[in-house]
Amino acid sequence: MEYSRILKEIYEEIQPYAQEGKPASYIPELLKVNPDRYGICLRTIEGKEYAQGDSDERFAVQSISKVFSLAMSFGRIGNELWKRIGVEPSGNAFNSIFQLEMEKGIPRNPLINAGALVMADVLLSVLEYPEREYLSFVRKLCGNDTIQYNESMAASEREYGYLNAAITNILKYHDNIENDIERVLRFYFRQCSIGMNCRELAHSFLPFADHTRPFSFDGTELTTSQVKRINAIMQTCGFYDEAGEFSYLVGLPGKSGVGGGIAAVCPRKYAVAVWSPRLNSKGNSVMGMKALELLTTKTAVSIF
Amino acid sequence: MEYSRILKEIYEEIQPYAQEGKPASYIPELLKVNPDRYGICLRTIEGKEYAQGDSDERFAVQSISKVFSLAMSFGRIGNELWKRIGVEPSGNAFNSIFQLEMEKGIPRNPLINAGALVMADVLLSVLEYPEREYLSFVRKLCGNDTIQYNESMAASEREYGYLNAAITNILKYHDNIENDIERVLRFYFRQCSIGMNCRELAHSFLPFADHTRPFSFDGTELTTSQVKRINAIMQTCGFYDEAGEFSYLVGLPGKSGVGGGIAAVCPRKYAVAVWSPRLNSKGNSVMGMKALELLTTKTAVSIF
Amino acid sequence: MEYSRILKEIYEEIQPYAQEGKPASYIPELLKVNPDRYGICLRTIEGKEYAQGDSDERFAVQSISKVFSLAMSFGRIGNELWKRIGVEPSGNAFNSIFQLEMEKGIPRNPLINAGALVMADVLLSVLEYPEREYLSFVRKLCGNDTIQYNESMAASEREYGYLNAAITNILKYHDNIENDIERVLRFYFRQCSIGMNCRELAHSFLPFADHTRPFSFDGTELTTSQVKRINAIMQTCGFYDEAGEFSYLVGLPGKSGVGGGIAAVCPRKYAVAVWSPRLNSKGNSVMGMKALELLTTKTAVSIF
Amino acid sequence: MEYSRILKEIYEEIQPYAQEGKPASYIPELLKVNPDRYGICLRTIEGKEYAQGDSDERFAVQSISKVFSLAMSFGRIGNELWKRIGVEPSGNAFNSIFQLEMEKGIPRNPLINAGALVMADVLLSVLEYPEREYLSFVRKLCGNDTIQYNESMAASEREYGYLNAAITNILKYHDNIENDIERVLRFYFRQCSIGMNCRELAHSFLPFADHTRPFSFDGTELTTSQVKRINAIMQTCGFYDEAGEFSYLVGLPGKSGVGGGIAAVCPRKYAVAVWSPRLNSKGNSVMGMKALELLTTKTAVSIF
Repeated sequence: MEYSRILKEIYEEIQPYAQEGKPASYIPELLKVNPDRYGICLRTIEGKEYAQGDSDERFAVQSISKVFSLAMSFGRIGNELWKRIGVEPSGNAFNSIFQLEMEKGIPRNPLINAGALVMADVLLSVLEYPEREYLSFVRKLCGNDTIQYNESMAASEREYGYLNAAITNILKYHDNIENDIERVLRFYFRQCSIGMNCRELAHSFLPFADHTRPFSFDGTELTTSQVKRINAIMQTCGFYDEAGEFSYLVGLPGKSGVGGGIAAVCPRKYAVAVWSPRLNSKGNSVMGMKALELLTTKTAVSIF
Repeated sequence: MEYSRILKEIYEEIQPYAQEGKPASYIPELLKVNPDRYGICLRTIEGKEYAQGDSDERFAVQSISKVFSLAMSFGRIGNELWKRIGVEPSGNAFNSIFQLEMEKGIPRNPLINAGALVMADVLLSVLEYPEREYLSFVRKLCGNDTIQYNESMAASEREYGYLNAAITNILKYHDNIENDIERVLRFYFRQCSIGMNCRELAHSFLPFADHTRPFSFDGTELTTSQVKRINAIMQTCGFYDEAGEFSYLVGLPGKSGVGGGIAAVCPRKYAVAVWSPRLNSKGNSVMGMKALELLTTKTAVSIF
Repeated sequence: MEYSRILKEIYEEIQPYAQEGKPASYIPELLKVNPDRYGICLRTIEGKEYAQGDSDERFAVQSISKVFSLAMSFGRIGNELWKRIGVEPSGNAFNSIFQLEMEKGIPRNPLINAGALVMADVLLSVLEYPEREYLSFVRKLCGNDTIQYNESMAASEREYGYLNAAITNILKYHDNIENDIERVLRFYFRQCSIGMNCRELAHSFLPFADHTRPFSFDGTELTTSQVKRINAIMQTCGFYDEAGEFSYLVGLPGKSGVGGGIAAVCPRKYAVAVWSPRLNSKGNSVMGMKALELLTTKTAVSIF
Repeated sequence: MEYSRILKEIYEEIQPYAQEGKPASYIPELLKVNPDRYGICLRTIEGKEYAQGDSDERFAVQSISKVFSLAMSFGRIGNELWKRIGVEPSGNAFNSIFQLEMEKGIPRNPLINAGALVMADVLLSVLEYPEREYLSFVRKLCGNDTIQYNESMAASEREYGYLNAAITNILKYHDNIENDIERVLRFYFRQCSIGMNCRELAHSFLPFADHTRPFSFDGTELTTSQVKRINAIMQTCGFYDEAGEFSYLVGLPGKSGVGGGIAAVCPRKYAVAVWSPRLNSKGNSVMGMKALELLTTKTAVSIF
């Protein structure tokens, strides 16, 4: 099929960018990863899978987990979620502290750290065994039961997680955190530490592209309308300060993580996951962004 | 066809919102409009047109003209435009002055006032007869040669346009305005004053939905890729502080104006224009927003 | 002497304000205090003392302790202090989080919370027994060995101290905290919890007014120049968002606390302490502010 | 007398700073000035005058004129002034636009541009011949009838005065400007263009130091209390982002101008004016700041 050829062409065309950018280094764990890795996997709603490069090596999903948290908390409490979190695009971490103050502790959207911390708080309140049930949901979503938290990475992130601790305290000050601050932070960092490879990640995002099958995984159920809304939020809020740039160049809903992963969906067609640890100045994977731009250009398919 | 029925249903279902919100009143001209008007027109890429309500009454397009300016300046100077304007979502006027300062006079995107003022400056520099050529382009786009500037409205807006004058001065301070400040302001306000009805507006947006015909109007030419990029920018930036909400509830690229109009496109399917003067607190038409939300729900078609 | 008469007149003239404002209530401990208390004590550099009202009842000095911390840390590490803290006026807590971000973790001045948290960190690093030595210094300064921390108030403030925890985390993120965050917070809240009455407070501020005697207390020594600089900082930064108003109306260097206390100095003449728990919207004692305004008007003595 | 010796010592000790900093260059007029000039003049309330260096050469007073405007508008409309302007310290131009928005068009204090523009508006409303009466007041204050506006400098500043035009538009938007925007700007820039030398400037500030003589000049009258309040405002707000630093190092109320001048008062003792065109990064004269720091150190006299 044509996708195989396209992934190969992309691989060749992004080589000039192979040494651009730097991997995240704020915790020692992240520096253990080989910065030269590159993998991509595209999975169609017909169930075909096309992969290239290091698509079987796992990496920390980091902020991509915010999409799983959004699915799970939106599925559990429905529109109640929007009383505690907005759906408007935001800027980077610095702005988000400022906005949090201006907007009385209501995070701008679920895909920034402040929003994810509130969702962690929601899940701590509604789930009986939060850590276990969260992992179980993600395992079902990607069809692989060996998915794990990386406990040492989570501990390391907590140790240096001063900005997230600041954000959680501001949220608590504004009564938008119900549980213990430390508990919320630890759950949040465990979510970020989950390790997946590109195949698993593409698999886990396919249900957001496929409206023909019901979204129902391990007790988390979403209507088609809710799935579309998650896509809409990824479209406007998935890439921090580069959300507009991604929408402009790629034209697909998606979410990036500081581990170098990006997952995106082409509604009614496919899900795609790409991974390469070197990041641009906005914190998004250099080769990942370029690969997805080429993908939508070559397939002449975007949502627009 | 089904669209006729859907527009009728929408009309009935939005009646409970008929008295919600208030029309813009910052200039006397705007208060002359009957606040109870409501019109809608949907035009498919096959050329069929479906209308309902006051779809033949003209109103000031206001900020919807920013899409025409974007098409014209992007068509004329191409990617040079992005050296002077970004493509990231922004907030309201107040934030945009703050961001303009923080970001050294580069407007966040073309669909906020600061961005449109820079585009007016671009057009003043590249066109021989800016006002005449701009109007001529819009006339071709909507297929109607009687479209006009509303000179008294433009003059009135200039008189009270303190915030826009402040923004233009900040842009000039940062060397992002080449022409005379007063000239830029007057051209900008004339663009906003253009009067169109829903039929004309839907007609003028159809080329953004239709990728099968070349975008070429009165000397302004855009590639399919450029048209898609304008859609991507409308998607993330078209509704000020409500861009995320619109993306979330409606799921179509679009642009609103303070005159109560909203135009949106469903790529490869249709363009739609709706008008109702009463605005919500974010400055977008109450019935217009609701009508479009119902449209995509009832047709079960969104870009996601 | 005339001061007795003046204090009596002040007492009478401020009665109309006796029910204005509300005492701080963010922790239960603060609500145990009778809101109708009012005391004042003026102590001249010749050693005379004039008191009125509830001047023997102790209250939590709260932010007035920042002056003690400034004297102690400036005395110990000298101008090194200004590498970690500025001397420019600031706004309220909300602004201070914003400024902290903008200015890379350097608090604007020593008399806002962020500055005091850095000073607590300094003292934790340079003192062998920080809590004991701090208390010992304050006891020497006010000439009373029974001064104590209020441990239950300190614990209560820590429990609800989300904003201060947020600030300390931001400081740590910017490498401006050396010690453990929790340790810094607990030391800071103990400083705030110190209980003093107006006589003791006036006594403890007299060394800042009196340049004829060396400032030397329990190992903390300041030159005359350093004492004047502390006065200059109190003048511009002592009253949060009301620093200018206080400078304008009263014209003396001073520092207020959320417990309702205010201490001020008239260089080369006297120190004065006033206490009344009801606060205005800026967090300063209503009757205290009024009393000091009347004092400088009646004595026709200000620094200007 | 001792002051002569001190001024000589100061002159020698600041030589190492003679080439530090750069003169303002935002308008051509300012670059005509020899950047190596240095003059100082101290005038005591007994009427003695001590001068050194280029103390007879005139320069543009620029923002120092804000003190004259404050005296004149406070004298004319009294406390009504504080309904339109605050008395709290502010930051630089960028912050002041942000604060102006946050605080609904009320400038933080009279000594920033926004405040001076409101005072220009006040004077335009209450004076019959604003330009003529303003100049007449300043001439009386400094005892010299040859003082003039520099019309070409004022015109040049208006031409490039984009930030001030932005500020005036924001003020007008918030209904804090009564007169025509252009009229206000032109009056303001003429005030800034006034040329004075150090002797004249010291003379004009002496009435703020001297409480023994009534402040009454050409119809502008201030009570002693009002004069002290102007000093208090100079103390907290006179040096933009360096107000705290100046208060800390020098300890006198004063005001700087971008032309390189600084005027300060030692209440009940003297007024001093210093001039040197090279500015530090905060826009204050390098040698001027240093000279005043040495002056208060050597005389061991500050207000603290």
